[in-house]
Amino acid sequence: MKTINLAVIGLGNRGRDVTKGTLLKMDDVNIVSVCDSYEDRAQEIAKEIAEKRGETPPVFTDYKKALEVKGIDAVVIFTSWESHTEIAVYAMQKGIPVGSEVGGEYAMDNCRRLVSVYEQTKTPYMFLENCCYGKDELLATAMARRGLFGQIVHCAGAYAHDLRSEVAWGIENRHYRYRNYLHRCCENYPTHELGPIAKLLDINRGNRIVSVTSVASKAAGLHDYIQEQKKSKTVPDYMQNAEFAQGDIVTTILKCAGGETITLKLDTTLPRFYSRDFTVRGTKGMYEQATNTVFLEGVHPEKYFDPVRSYQELINNATEYEKDYLPELWKKITPEEMSTGHGGMDYFAYRAFIEALKTKSDMPIDVYDAASWMAVSVLSEQSILQGGMPQAMPDFTSGNWQTRKRKDVTEL
Amino acid sequence: MKTINLAVIGLGNRGRDVTKGTLLKMDDVNIVSVCDSYEDRAQEIAKEIAEKRGETPPVFTDYKKALEVKGIDAVVIFTSWESHTEIAVYAMQKGIPVGSEVGGEYAMDNCRRLVSVYEQTKTPYMFLENCCYGKDELLATAMARRGLFGQIVHCAGAYAHDLRSEVAWGIENRHYRYRNYLHRCCENYPTHELGPIAKLLDINRGNRIVSVTSVASKAAGLHDYIQEQKKSKTVPDYMQNAEFAQGDIVTTILKCAGGETITLKLDTTLPRFYSRDFTVRGTKGMYEQATNTVFLEGVHPEKYFDPVRSYQELINNATEYEKDYLPELWKKITPEEMSTGHGGMDYFAYRAFIEALKTKSDMPIDVYDAASWMAVSVLSEQSILQGGMPQAMPDFTSGNWQTRKRKDVTEL
Repeated sequence: MKTINLAVIGLGNRGRDVTKGTLLKMDDVNIVSVCDSYEDRAQEIAKEIAEKRGETPPVFTDYKKALEVKGIDAVVIFTSWESHTEIAVYAMQKGIPVGSEVGGEYAMDNCRRLVSVYEQTKTPYMFLENCCYGKDELLATAMARRGLFGQIVHCAGAYAHDLRSEVAWGIENRHYRYRNYLHRCCENYPTHELGPIAKLLDINRGNRIVSVTSVASKAAGLHDYIQEQKKSKTVPDYMQNAEFAQGDIVTTILKCAGGETITLKLDTTLPRFYSRDFTVRGTKGMYEQATNTVFLEGVHPEKYFDPVRSYQELINNATEYEKDYLPELWKKITPEEMSTGHGGMDYFAYRAFIEALKTKSDMPIDVYDAASWMAVSVLSEQSILQGGMPQAMPDFTSGNWQTRKRKDVTEL
Repeated sequence: MKTINLAVIGLGNRGRDVTKGTLLKMDDVNIVSVCDSYEDRAQEIAKEIAEKRGETPPVFTDYKKALEVKGIDAVVIFTSWESHTEIAVYAMQKGIPVGSEVGGEYAMDNCRRLVSVYEQTKTPYMFLENCCYGKDELLATAMARRGLFGQIVHCAGAYAHDLRSEVAWGIENRHYRYRNYLHRCCENYPTHELGPIAKLLDINRGNRIVSVTSVASKAAGLHDYIQEQKKSKTVPDYMQNAEFAQGDIVTTILKCAGGETITLKLDTTLPRFYSRDFTVRGTKGMYEQATNTVFLEGVHPEKYFDPVRSYQELINNATEYEKDYLPELWKKITPEEMSTGHGGMDYFAYRAFIEALKTKSDMPIDVYDAASWMAVSVLSEQSILQGGMPQAMPDFTSGNWQTRKRKDVTEL
């Protein structure tokens, strides 16, 4: 295949950004079908495509009709979290390869269905977790692969991103997060931090997640934010009376078959700066994104004790390790690629999908990854409802995790 | 009382350091009785005391005999974790006021006994948690009290301190940590981070901890450390074959009656720099010790998004807030006080104990604090044994937490 003809489903913020910022910049990608349940969004992007490529793709509000267009090589799904699996399953059953944007699941049955439909159809499926291609994440993973951290025993990460304006004004801006924050309390968006950790820990490939425990704080951030908004803006009644179910901080602990623990933090409704807090801990060293620090046994002084921040002279040294360990794709990134979104991660994720389609290779982030990562939302919700009771993670590989071989996203 | 006559029980590292570094520097403190089950340790400190003060205190190996000395005004307990409660209870029953060093408990009965003996005898008891007097912790607490962070919804902390040499060589250096790391797996030392958080969240004074959930990683750090030691040292057989039960990273989540969550991390057997990661999150702002950062709504830019570390220009600004918010005791600290240990925290904690004894005031960290903080170890051990099952925290105040008034350690 010289070019890939894509159907694009879902044109909210993410669909629009990736389509304009990433897909339309790829010469070997054509967009041949666009769809959103809000027709104006689909029309808007169709116009953009026409301006850039000279041809207006057909516009749909029904994804099934959007997938009837002749010559579609693959579909990319940018819709609300609730519909990812339904659309992915429908496309796989039609033999249309799927690239799915990220999110969490609602029902364990959906995770199982994703896997079983893939196993029945063998239609290619990739979970487009851009943070698996993050610069920091890949630097730390490369160092871990070279043994610099010794045996890995613990990883941590966060989705720490102040989304209050997006969520609180969610009805006005037609965002699915509003209804989710109103009705549910869980780790609703685990994969930005879990994805790269799961790859590093070889989840579903020699290791697996065995249990999920979540505890949520109270929900106060959105309430206080809306009270503050009222001082300067006209706030609609429904928003003033909204009682959000989603706790401000959700802490989740995963235990793995290899004995490793993973802690995840969902942190989206309190004021803060953006962070993913990617952390890797081993018996010989550590990587800590929050402070941009590498600490290696025998290289860095054994003890920084007293007072607490006597290690300030040490931290913020991780960049020094890029010369020796940063993967090639990040060393060679062009300004054009970097401008595609999220500092280049979007380019790498979507490029990997397109390349795997063209070369008919296995997808670097597959249906087993998608099912087990998205299942964390389901189990987190159950755990919180049961006061923090640990929940068992199903084995979506049916035992094959014991023999499946490592596949890093940097492998071609 | 013009001077306080102290009995000192337990003269390992901590007892020796505080006695020499802090207590012997206080003119209004006499040490009139010293005791350690290893006589050489007690003799050594008796000699030091004689050199400094001209009088040699009597030396004991039995704490009960050490408490028979005439004229004792109070006892300070620096012994192994296992014996803190036994000695404290014995002293309270004899009417001797107690200052107890920190640790975790083993049995809920001991926590209850501490409270009930105090309630029966009303003998003063203080839990000498020096980190409640930490500079960073008190700066953040003062800012929280002034409302700068809005409603507090989440706090976090860690005891992140590489103790591998102390633990692994524990038989050689007669350290109680060795046996604890060999036999138990739990949040064995929760109070350095939990203490200041509990004070900030008014635990037992308007709020209380309701549940404890813990998950532990595998234990690999000490094993790999000992293998490394073998390359350059003669390592005794028992150590080479030691199988430690204590997981390297123990993550604990506490839920409070007010809806707040607290996460604790015990992190003592992997290479790293020292940190307590004290973190306060509210609806208007945050404090983060790891990056030395204050982030306030309306003061700091709303979003730092892309790439991840675009907030580097912001972090490390917390010191700017000391001028306006650092409590007086830290503003006025003398070089002499600062040199007493742990950058001055030891001085403040022991000074508070001595002052409360002299003025017959309520202790700033009391028996209810001690019981509920040390109970975290007990519940953590149970939770881990049950695969992360949440455990209910007893209400040691018998309902009085609802009406007990706030008492900050900075109140005189």
